[in-house]
Amino acid sequence: MKTRRNRSRGTERARTPVNIAPPATGTPGGVYKPLKDADVQNIHAAALEVLSTVGIKEPTDTVRDLALEAGCIQDETGRLLFPTSLVEDVIAGAARDFVLHGQTPEHDIEVRDGHVHFATGGAAVKMLDSHTRQYRPSTLSDLYDLARLCETLPNIQWFARPVVATDIEDWRELDLNTIYAIARGTRKHLGSSIVLDSHVPEIIEMLDMMVGEEGAFRKRPFLSVHATTIVSPLTFAEDSSNVATAAARAGMPILSQTGPQAGATSPAALAGSLVQTVAESLGALVAINLVKRGHPVIASGWPFVADLRTGSFTGGNGEQALLAAGQAQMMRFYKLPTGVPAGMADAKVPDNQAGYEKALTTAMAAMSGPDFVYESIGMLGSLLGCSLEAALIDHEMLTSVRRVMRGIEVTPDNLSVDVIAEAARGAGHYLAAGQTLALMETEYIYPELADRDSPDSWKEKGSRDIWDRANLRVREIMATTFPDHISDSADAAVRARFPIHLPESAIDPATSHWAHDLDAAS
Amino acid sequence: MKTRRNRSRGTERARTPVNIAPPATGTPGGVYKPLKDADVQNIHAAALEVLSTVGIKEPTDTVRDLALEAGCIQDETGRLLFPTSLVEDVIAGAARDFVLHGQTPEHDIEVRDGHVHFATGGAAVKMLDSHTRQYRPSTLSDLYDLARLCETLPNIQWFARPVVATDIEDWRELDLNTIYAIARGTRKHLGSSIVLDSHVPEIIEMLDMMVGEEGAFRKRPFLSVHATTIVSPLTFAEDSSNVATAAARAGMPILSQTGPQAGATSPAALAGSLVQTVAESLGALVAINLVKRGHPVIASGWPFVADLRTGSFTGGNGEQALLAAGQAQMMRFYKLPTGVPAGMADAKVPDNQAGYEKALTTAMAAMSGPDFVYESIGMLGSLLGCSLEAALIDHEMLTSVRRVMRGIEVTPDNLSVDVIAEAARGAGHYLAAGQTLALMETEYIYPELADRDSPDSWKEKGSRDIWDRANLRVREIMATTFPDHISDSADAAVRARFPIHLPESAIDPATSHWAHDLDAAS
Repeated sequence: MKTRRNRSRGTERARTPVNIAPPATGTPGGVYKPLKDADVQNIHAAALEVLSTVGIKEPTDTVRDLALEAGCIQDETGRLLFPTSLVEDVIAGAARDFVLHGQTPEHDIEVRDGHVHFATGGAAVKMLDSHTRQYRPSTLSDLYDLARLCETLPNIQWFARPVVATDIEDWRELDLNTIYAIARGTRKHLGSSIVLDSHVPEIIEMLDMMVGEEGAFRKRPFLSVHATTIVSPLTFAEDSSNVATAAARAGMPILSQTGPQAGATSPAALAGSLVQTVAESLGALVAINLVKRGHPVIASGWPFVADLRTGSFTGGNGEQALLAAGQAQMMRFYKLPTGVPAGMADAKVPDNQAGYEKALTTAMAAMSGPDFVYESIGMLGSLLGCSLEAALIDHEMLTSVRRVMRGIEVTPDNLSVDVIAEAARGAGHYLAAGQTLALMETEYIYPELADRDSPDSWKEKGSRDIWDRANLRVREIMATTFPDHISDSADAAVRARFPIHLPESAIDPATSHWAHDLDAAS
Repeated sequence: MKTRRNRSRGTERARTPVNIAPPATGTPGGVYKPLKDADVQNIHAAALEVLSTVGIKEPTDTVRDLALEAGCIQDETGRLLFPTSLVEDVIAGAARDFVLHGQTPEHDIEVRDGHVHFATGGAAVKMLDSHTRQYRPSTLSDLYDLARLCETLPNIQWFARPVVATDIEDWRELDLNTIYAIARGTRKHLGSSIVLDSHVPEIIEMLDMMVGEEGAFRKRPFLSVHATTIVSPLTFAEDSSNVATAAARAGMPILSQTGPQAGATSPAALAGSLVQTVAESLGALVAINLVKRGHPVIASGWPFVADLRTGSFTGGNGEQALLAAGQAQMMRFYKLPTGVPAGMADAKVPDNQAGYEKALTTAMAAMSGPDFVYESIGMLGSLLGCSLEAALIDHEMLTSVRRVMRGIEVTPDNLSVDVIAEAARGAGHYLAAGQTLALMETEYIYPELADRDSPDSWKEKGSRDIWDRANLRVREIMATTFPDHISDSADAAVRARFPIHLPESAIDPATSHWAHDLDAAS
């Protein structure tokens, strides 16, 4: 019944050449700095001014009480104003250099200033179906499938829920099932929003049961909650703030998000949009730290862009690349763990538009050195859609982005003067040189999906574009990758205790609807 | 008969918003520096060592005689060794800050250190046909069509022949017809290789006739010759060297190229490949300057990459992005006008692979601040193929790349503290703010081909990917853009004097084979 299930075990590390597998510490970034040093100072000063004079409205009772105690004041309209000294104090004491856990230790990742990890993210409501190539509402099964796909993708080190399980209506069941499906699909660090703070204890109980040990989650918290504690402009969100408070108390790391759209919910001036994003990021950080000083927080301002002709969100543009990189630079200035979004194509299918939108925004964001690049694979349609094929293609692009980030190594040896002299005076080429053989697996990346054939060879092989090729590979992965880190007894216990909607047939390779695809593809 | 011909006149400037149209001085680059300062010095020193100890073999008689007179020596095998003092002297006296002319003055472009222009380039032998979407041999008509397309594309400021007219066998006729077709198709600065030095006088005679004035070309030389005077590793190419010598004497600017492939014709170590590329670039520069000191030269080393599994050229990878950016940084160190290649996708069609390969390599190359990014639009199949649709799509990507290059403007006003205070305390959004209305056309780019519709709207409009949309626009442009800067009498005189193969029917909107497409598309 489960003959294929074990195939996935650790395969991605074994199959990945040493030069491709990212270290647990991430890939160093920070080469690209869109802001001059003086501009960083100016944005910093303006953000502090906004926090101390405009402040943030509608704090929860908990945050308000803690804030007033810590020196904040409320103005006549009830806005919470943050004195600069408090903000600076929280920044100084914020958590840095911590570990985010996987379900198994080999998936632990280190958060260190300027070392970049790639993550998923999003809340798409549509899935570009692998079989019909049409959009349909996204489901819980899609979440499980996306998690399984990411289990095989070495560049992704944090699997945050990319789509919403639109087939589940009840909020409690949505939270439980979302987190069950992704925890079942991958052992990597997980991320998800949580609708209400009252769901947090049950979620932790479920995760403990999946591991098979009470208290396991608190020892190695392998799920971060994505909490948009501030909605733009400068307004506390009650439910998310309460979720963040509950998470901080339960030892659950927090991806603290704010998502202003330049021109719509933040200034149209990119600089001004950064000022607000920084102010909101710091305000959210203060609020969480007031609940629990030094709690692990990824202080993620996500400065988005609105198309000012329509007011709609647009993600695949140069302005977005600049804002993400600028925000990363600001958070690096504070040495605060941070993440920014990139790869959010406006294209509806994985076409040429998707490729350039994703590469431009992802490369610029990653080069600026945030700790995490979110949304980095799979997203289409301005975050409304998601695709397994797009995820696979984007993941290969990340390999190239990471190669660029690694840079050019210059040593006395690889300056190669002797190698040049020998080739120029001798063979007239370097194909058989010792250096070439020694470096071919470390200096170069060889893609799996990207085609390097000549036009004639490519035609002989069927004239497939990369979407076609990705589709074949997706079907293969989906039919063979069924992570088995959750024991059958633990799974049964979870299903007995909680209303799990993901059918057992979906997690069994013999009965998965993908099973027949493998035969079709081969 | 020619009713549609005038439609193209200056349309691209008129239709292009002020924030998109590139200035004649180019877009400032140089934000991205892949090499540390010390590495730049190390590569510089190694390149000078290679030039003085390994040197370049098989100089032409002209170059050899001038070089020996200038202090070079020949070693026992006949290799020409370049003393460092000579190289440094030539670098110091090389042409900088010059103008490259268009056929009409509004297309003149300024070459200034670190200001980036985008250009075409290449010598593809296959065209991805707009009607069949299959590859076929490229023709003279394709060259004319590509030139006409670029006439409408504001980001392209130098039109270098992207494809070879494979339908012309005779070398003299190939040179004359190539340059006729591109000069007929666009008023922008032109580039082409020339097979033999004996063709140079006739080409200039033809160009004078096209302008309608003897000596016109020497006054405003609007064609640069692309001369690969050195083939890698470190060997003078006789024919191209002679062409460069003839061009220098005739006042024709020279794009001096060298194209080593890392791992095949230059070291597999990226650093070593840069050492050789710099050495070859400087060697070629010295040879041309020995013929004519201070002649306008774009000292373009194009460090390419070989796939070391097959030995084949590959253009769309992270290593290529690093090499191009590194070479640009080296030439900026010398403050020498330079160009690097980017956008050379290995993909065979304008698919997702093409998009990410092009965006990654082009963004990194452009951000490093070369004077020119060549091959920047249209190229597919590792430079073997070209496509009008790809060119149009890539061109729109360049608009985003240029937006990123422009960066984030930080001023007291656009820090927006007051704007934030007003929106946060008032409307709760910025859609109607005065700043938003004031900045929406300058801070943001609105694409024409890239789709920002929702998945539902996009489906209602026909579910077209960007290749489909580009195809429609290409047909429209091809049916309506017939630049008329060459007078009928000049054209007749050229046709009487030279064996021009481009049929008159092709340059007449009424008889062009594209004419029926406009009706089909509308």
